[in-house]
Amino acid sequence: MSNVELDELRGRLDEINGKLLELISERAAVVQEIGVIKEKQGVPKFDPEREKKMLDELVASNKGPFTGSTIRSLFKQIFSASLDLQSDEHKKTLLVARKSHKEDTVIVLPGEVTVGGASSLMVAGPCSVESELQTRTVAAALQKAGVRVMRGGAFKPRTSPYDFQGLGMEGLRILREAASEYGLLTISEIVDPRHIEEALDYVDIIQIGARNMHNFELLKAVGEVNKPVLLKRGLSATLDEFVHAAEYIMSRGNTQVMLIERGIRTYERSTRNTLDISAVPILKQECHLPVLVDVTHSTGRKDIMLPCAKAALAAGADGIMIEVHPDPATALSDAAQQLNIDEFNTFMKEMNASGLFR
Amino acid sequence: MSNVELDELRGRLDEINGKLLELISERAAVVQEIGVIKEKQGVPKFDPEREKKMLDELVASNKGPFTGSTIRSLFKQIFSASLDLQSDEHKKTLLVARKSHKEDTVIVLPGEVTVGGASSLMVAGPCSVESELQTRTVAAALQKAGVRVMRGGAFKPRTSPYDFQGLGMEGLRILREAASEYGLLTISEIVDPRHIEEALDYVDIIQIGARNMHNFELLKAVGEVNKPVLLKRGLSATLDEFVHAAEYIMSRGNTQVMLIERGIRTYERSTRNTLDISAVPILKQECHLPVLVDVTHSTGRKDIMLPCAKAALAAGADGIMIEVHPDPATALSDAAQQLNIDEFNTFMKEMNASGLFR
Amino acid sequence: MSNVELDELRGRLDEINGKLLELISERAAVVQEIGVIKEKQGVPKFDPEREKKMLDELVASNKGPFTGSTIRSLFKQIFSASLDLQSDEHKKTLLVARKSHKEDTVIVLPGEVTVGGASSLMVAGPCSVESELQTRTVAAALQKAGVRVMRGGAFKPRTSPYDFQGLGMEGLRILREAASEYGLLTISEIVDPRHIEEALDYVDIIQIGARNMHNFELLKAVGEVNKPVLLKRGLSATLDEFVHAAEYIMSRGNTQVMLIERGIRTYERSTRNTLDISAVPILKQECHLPVLVDVTHSTGRKDIMLPCAKAALAAGADGIMIEVHPDPATALSDAAQQLNIDEFNTFMKEMNASGLFR
Amino acid sequence: MSNVELDELRGRLDEINGKLLELISERAAVVQEIGVIKEKQGVPKFDPEREKKMLDELVASNKGPFTGSTIRSLFKQIFSASLDLQSDEHKKTLLVARKSHKEDTVIVLPGEVTVGGASSLMVAGPCSVESELQTRTVAAALQKAGVRVMRGGAFKPRTSPYDFQGLGMEGLRILREAASEYGLLTISEIVDPRHIEEALDYVDIIQIGARNMHNFELLKAVGEVNKPVLLKRGLSATLDEFVHAAEYIMSRGNTQVMLIERGIRTYERSTRNTLDISAVPILKQECHLPVLVDVTHSTGRKDIMLPCAKAALAAGADGIMIEVHPDPATALSDAAQQLNIDEFNTFMKEMNASGLFR
Repeated sequence: MSNVELDELRGRLDEINGKLLELISERAAVVQEIGVIKEKQGVPKFDPEREKKMLDELVASNKGPFTGSTIRSLFKQIFSASLDLQSDEHKKTLLVARKSHKEDTVIVLPGEVTVGGASSLMVAGPCSVESELQTRTVAAALQKAGVRVMRGGAFKPRTSPYDFQGLGMEGLRILREAASEYGLLTISEIVDPRHIEEALDYVDIIQIGARNMHNFELLKAVGEVNKPVLLKRGLSATLDEFVHAAEYIMSRGNTQVMLIERGIRTYERSTRNTLDISAVPILKQECHLPVLVDVTHSTGRKDIMLPCAKAALAAGADGIMIEVHPDPATALSDAAQQLNIDEFNTFMKEMNASGLFR
Repeated sequence: MSNVELDELRGRLDEINGKLLELISERAAVVQEIGVIKEKQGVPKFDPEREKKMLDELVASNKGPFTGSTIRSLFKQIFSASLDLQSDEHKKTLLVARKSHKEDTVIVLPGEVTVGGASSLMVAGPCSVESELQTRTVAAALQKAGVRVMRGGAFKPRTSPYDFQGLGMEGLRILREAASEYGLLTISEIVDPRHIEEALDYVDIIQIGARNMHNFELLKAVGEVNKPVLLKRGLSATLDEFVHAAEYIMSRGNTQVMLIERGIRTYERSTRNTLDISAVPILKQECHLPVLVDVTHSTGRKDIMLPCAKAALAAGADGIMIEVHPDPATALSDAAQQLNIDEFNTFMKEMNASGLFR
Repeated sequence: MSNVELDELRGRLDEINGKLLELISERAAVVQEIGVIKEKQGVPKFDPEREKKMLDELVASNKGPFTGSTIRSLFKQIFSASLDLQSDEHKKTLLVARKSHKEDTVIVLPGEVTVGGASSLMVAGPCSVESELQTRTVAAALQKAGVRVMRGGAFKPRTSPYDFQGLGMEGLRILREAASEYGLLTISEIVDPRHIEEALDYVDIIQIGARNMHNFELLKAVGEVNKPVLLKRGLSATLDEFVHAAEYIMSRGNTQVMLIERGIRTYERSTRNTLDISAVPILKQECHLPVLVDVTHSTGRKDIMLPCAKAALAAGADGIMIEVHPDPATALSDAAQQLNIDEFNTFMKEMNASGLFR
Repeated sequence: MSNVELDELRGRLDEINGKLLELISERAAVVQEIGVIKEKQGVPKFDPEREKKMLDELVASNKGPFTGSTIRSLFKQIFSASLDLQSDEHKKTLLVARKSHKEDTVIVLPGEVTVGGASSLMVAGPCSVESELQTRTVAAALQKAGVRVMRGGAFKPRTSPYDFQGLGMEGLRILREAASEYGLLTISEIVDPRHIEEALDYVDIIQIGARNMHNFELLKAVGEVNKPVLLKRGLSATLDEFVHAAEYIMSRGNTQVMLIERGIRTYERSTRNTLDISAVPILKQECHLPVLVDVTHSTGRKDIMLPCAKAALAAGADGIMIEVHPDPATALSDAAQQLNIDEFNTFMKEMNASGLFR
């Protein structure tokens, strides 16, 4: 007999479930309408006071069997799902979001070099441009190794104001000359909106460094030029912040943006930073932009750069950045972590042999 | 005009909220009836297959705007709340929670020493019990300084199996003798359920160390004895995990639990750990248990222990733990961070003068 | 017997140490002579090729027990110390360091308001300047509560480019007018070097936000004006980086710098950030600058701001910053964490009663 | 003329360099002798007081041109390099260290299944053993997919004492029966030394969970049985602590130890933990033990498990662990992150197609 009873009770549950679904959906539609109005008024969508009032009223009229706190918690879930609906739409409308642009963005650089397409990109070069000789030596080695894009810092953000700050515009000029001599493209970090215009003559890709990922005035400024930008993830930026930093650039009109994971700050001290490998597939899913991995800054250790570069490509990265110096021990910055030219050649050979570097 | 519209939409939301509440409550009542029947039949109350079927049906009939996975998640919350209704009522509120016990728990130790009441507690002593002489020297100094509870490690969880692991039961015996000689109570870490019974003769407070905060078998074991327990926050435990670890002890019957913040792992390297001072007021709000702060392990630096101890008391802590050694430079563990006796006397003098140590 | 042996070995170490000191000093003197010659020749003092050659020779003749790379690293330290000798003496000690300036820096603001001296500073006001009414309402409340410095954001660095970005210069004008009406000083964040000059008319203290602590161009720019600067610690800046960021400002001539701890990023989610209370005594020891604590951003929770503010002062902080809004629930930014005026009045009453707010 | 002078000075530098090298090497040899004596005496090798005294004497006898603080810093480098020599040797002598055992350890399980050798290992199965049906359903699917080792939790360490704690020994029995039926080996977590003996009948590999990596009594206990152990990295353990936890096991005689990276706690919230991919090559370099990666707990997101598994293998991992459940939505633990059987089949197909799963 009790099974008949059970079946009956289950039938009632199913009925109630159906009604709950209808009501919850209806509720969500109303919240969406409210969202549209608030959007127009420029008023924040989340209204904590209103939510509190609704919850208080629900708890007040609750007659059990749930406790007030269970009711509060269940309705907070429902309210928050409705709010998420609005933010899902917000994410849908981010220019960087894959939701708004299904295909991978492929950036075409001079000389038919592409980023984000069928072939992997290798960006290599010294941490800092130090001299013409040093820069030309690296450029020659890169050309020989089949690399197409050369990095080299001219404006160096350093922890101490008394550390070597880079050669500035003169460094960019040296980089451009060496690169041109060896048929390479250039990438270099810009740290001040006032330098952008002059720098455009020297760089093919503007790099925004980790310390400036949150420098929104600089992001806006590079958003207004017609030059590809490589944006580094901040020292401890969340992926959400990283994606929005890219949006700052794109929202100003510059659609040629590349993202680069460079390790995050954690408690672990056996690496300089912790390479957040999950960032690669997440960024590829959420955005349509090319994603690179900087194996030098993320690890700070030459002895694991090769496996980490392979891991990056296996995880879906579109390219790798690595530092190379003719004589790392005497480098003016990042001495311990730059490969020398022999080490770099071995690295490239292994990358090519891995089948992961396309 | 849109405010009129807004008000109308909000009116509709309120109406829907009310109907949802009714349905959810009705649903819960039905689930309770089902529970009664199942109880009689001796059938388990949770029926994963039935739940799956209901969820599948809901998703199938969902027409939006929520995605299927949001519907699934919302209804899982509702189902699970209903299921919780069936389970024992006592589980609903944590025993450690202030919600279930408004007054501060005051633990009364032998000799009228109280923790969590009107006066602050100072727990001091060496990192490890090393010898009778060392232990008695500290005990004498503590008595002179007015301290009532002496710490001293006998079972030392060390990173390497080859580091000094403590004197074991012999260490506990030495600690107890020195303490008794100078009228002090004892606290020492226990790391293995199999040691508890024997240790009860030697310690007035059992300490559970940071590395064992997640050792639930040990927590259950100390939950079954009639002896106060000082529970350390794990190396990187969230406050929620910390509170639940205390609940493991209390749920077994032992209500004499004290919590101690000892710093968390972060990227910052100028201190051994980062003293999470916010933990103190949050734990005091959420739980009714006494809360202490270990200024030795949280900072690892003698030069800031005094200001950090003051900060802890100002934030509401019920007591302080600090390491003292007659000759820190020769200590078998934690050499750099233990105060010598002169330093400790100065520390106590300043604490007493601060007006914060009650 | 082995102690005799130990003593003998230690005697030999002392002897070797003495000889090493002599040689290292002699070496430094030779390098100085070389520097004088190079100076005359106008040749750069650092000669990376020569250094490389010396290092290679040392490694080649190394017979152990150190590995070649340890030898290379030790000698690089020695070489680099010698090179530093050649560089300007003023660089050797940081300007912000207490070592170079024993007394606390006391910053004197208009109206005899001091920071870093005998009395504690309270900085309060809304997250963002939103309107004249909102700003004047807060200003009136602050005056009544005895507060002398009002904060209010006009340039808001926000995660999303689509979030409210502040009223800009108009916001600064509103802030200044409201503050003047109620006899208050103003502090507001500047995010772009190009805004500084115009902002000087409106703010008594320039704030550099957490996201810009590593924006060295901005630091240099505020280092060149004659206006006090409040520098926030970066989201995950180490104390060493924080101190050097202050040095960027001071090295440009502006000596009126205040530091403010505002919480760091950790895994703990029960607070918005983790208030690093140890930062206060460490910064006070290492620097001569005033140190404040922002209890709003470090905790993100109204319910613990009071105990955290007390803790900050007990730890030695020179002041507190807190956000106040006439109607937090409707605020355009940071809605959840701003105190309303009643809450702020209670907060101030408790602060004054605590004996910690001098 | 000055070039002659320069050359002469350089000659003197070279001579001094040579003498410094000799002295530094001699010094290191003496420190090594001291280390041997201290080892015998069981005295800690680092003696901070003695170091302080040496540094004070050096500074006292320093006549320039270096400042006292430069002398202090240079000699601290030299002292610390000497200490590192001792710790290098310590690492050399860890049983887990590659320095002490050049070849990869290959663990041979029943049925010729090997871990750490030429072929990759896949460990799959439900988070918890819930019922015979559930377990057999997974076992059948695993057999079909070519998997050889099945996981399934019977003792579940859960944050709350009121959460499902696993079926205990009954769970192990169910797991063993299902596994035997489908020709699979078993792995399951043990949380209490008192359960080990009985569990030996049911499991082919004992798992030590992340929360127990620091439970040294448990490590010692599993170190004394003749059964392979899979050791999970602690929630926020450093690699150094992880390696030493493995040493606890090996030092008791059990040499069949496998390491598994399972993500670490960081500020990033888009994944459940942060997969520390660098851990793989570092552990492979420093230890001779097999290294696996748990892609379920490290990411907590089904949508990136495949690229993360590929990355793990590309980085050198010997195997992957992943959770599979016939109906994840109704699972009693870890509902959101277990693959269902279709998803798992797709996962395996892609792994096999990648060329990375050997």
